[in-house]
Amino acid sequence: MKVDLAELTPDVATFLGQAAYLQLVIFENLSTAVATAPTTEAKETLSRVASFALAKHHGLTDLIARHGDTPAEVMEPFTASIDVYQLRTQGADWFEMVTTCYLTAGFLDDFFVRLAAGLPARYAESVVAMLSVDAGSDLLAEEIRRAIDANDRLASRLALWGRRLVGDTVLIARSALALAPQKDATRHGQDEARIEPVFTELITAHTRRMDALGLTA
Amino acid sequence: MKVDLAELTPDVATFLGQAAYLQLVIFENLSTAVATAPTTEAKETLSRVASFALAKHHGLTDLIARHGDTPAEVMEPFTASIDVYQLRTQGADWFEMVTTCYLTAGFLDDFFVRLAAGLPARYAESVVAMLSVDAGSDLLAEEIRRAIDANDRLASRLALWGRRLVGDTVLIARSALALAPQKDATRHGQDEARIEPVFTELITAHTRRMDALGLTA
Repeated sequence: MKVDLAELTPDVATFLGQAAYLQLVIFENLSTAVATAPTTEAKETLSRVASFALAKHHGLTDLIARHGDTPAEVMEPFTASIDVYQLRTQGADWFEMVTTCYLTAGFLDDFFVRLAAGLPARYAESVVAMLSVDAGSDLLAEEIRRAIDANDRLASRLALWGRRLVGDTVLIARSALALAPQKDATRHGQDEARIEPVFTELITAHTRRMDALGLTA
Repeated sequence: MKVDLAELTPDVATFLGQAAYLQLVIFENLSTAVATAPTTEAKETLSRVASFALAKHHGLTDLIARHGDTPAEVMEPFTASIDVYQLRTQGADWFEMVTTCYLTAGFLDDFFVRLAAGLPARYAESVVAMLSVDAGSDLLAEEIRRAIDANDRLASRLALWGRRLVGDTVLIARSALALAPQKDATRHGQDEARIEPVFTELITAHTRRMDALGLTA
């Protein structure tokens, strides 16, 4: 049984707005990877992965609509900070972009599944079902491994990139938590204590994903 | 009954390779429009339209697989010229990009539906069913009309852009035809005579799409 974040889950709209907009960003990153792919075969593979991410995004916006809200309105408060996150995680080229798609989608899906534990049951079930579906991560890993095999120097650059990504991704995930304010030192300290084991697990999973690429985290 | 292009239809793989890769380019253009949208609402609307285009692309690549071919291999011979077409039709900003998405998707779907008339019946039926589905063109038209309403000077610029697009789009469509070689002057002349009424209709439809935006073609 995974440690969850049920005590730190925000209200339904706040949860869905952030999860949906981050999923849209994952899709946009995959689209960039489609458009800049070095071969037609890679382009075709990435287009499949992009369609899975887009389906997750629309699954989440459908939930927002079912909750009686307008997707764009519910996402709006989070677009500025998530756009900055997107910019910081674009990478210098196609290889870094695909690595971003692989590592951040894995991390964020994992995170939002744990955070969903505190949603009302019917939303929790839908979100977990949607985000737990593997959305082509093996296809992405295979593209990256193939690129590394063909270019020795790529491995160390992507290892560095993967380590940098985890910092930005932890920050954007943390910003989705309903934490007690810092001035309430006791409750804030309790919240931090709750978060720690979860992020330890999320980072362990990130390391496993990097291992699967043959990279050292 | 529309004039069709049954006499000029290439073999199944050649047809599907070109139609599938062009649909992928339409999707890529829509993704660019998603990523650069001026509002979260526009982004959300465009993400829906992008998912429709991506579904058409994957419908066509599924047909390629059903025909016993590999999608990337079948698309490969056409990527160079279609990539140039894509580059020429990117436009200077988001408004021109969305106009490209609206006008070229309409034109090319219309063209490939007519060209499908010469495919073996089961492929023809699948292609026509797939490409005849309206893939959110009203949503695109509405975005453009809203932008024009908010900015007087945009109308003349987009009118100019729409007129330029038709030239490039006619050329890329023509390149998908199985024409008699120019040295066979008699047959080549017959083919040109067959093409003319079809392109007249396609351009009329393009003009109607521009009218729907309130632009003069």
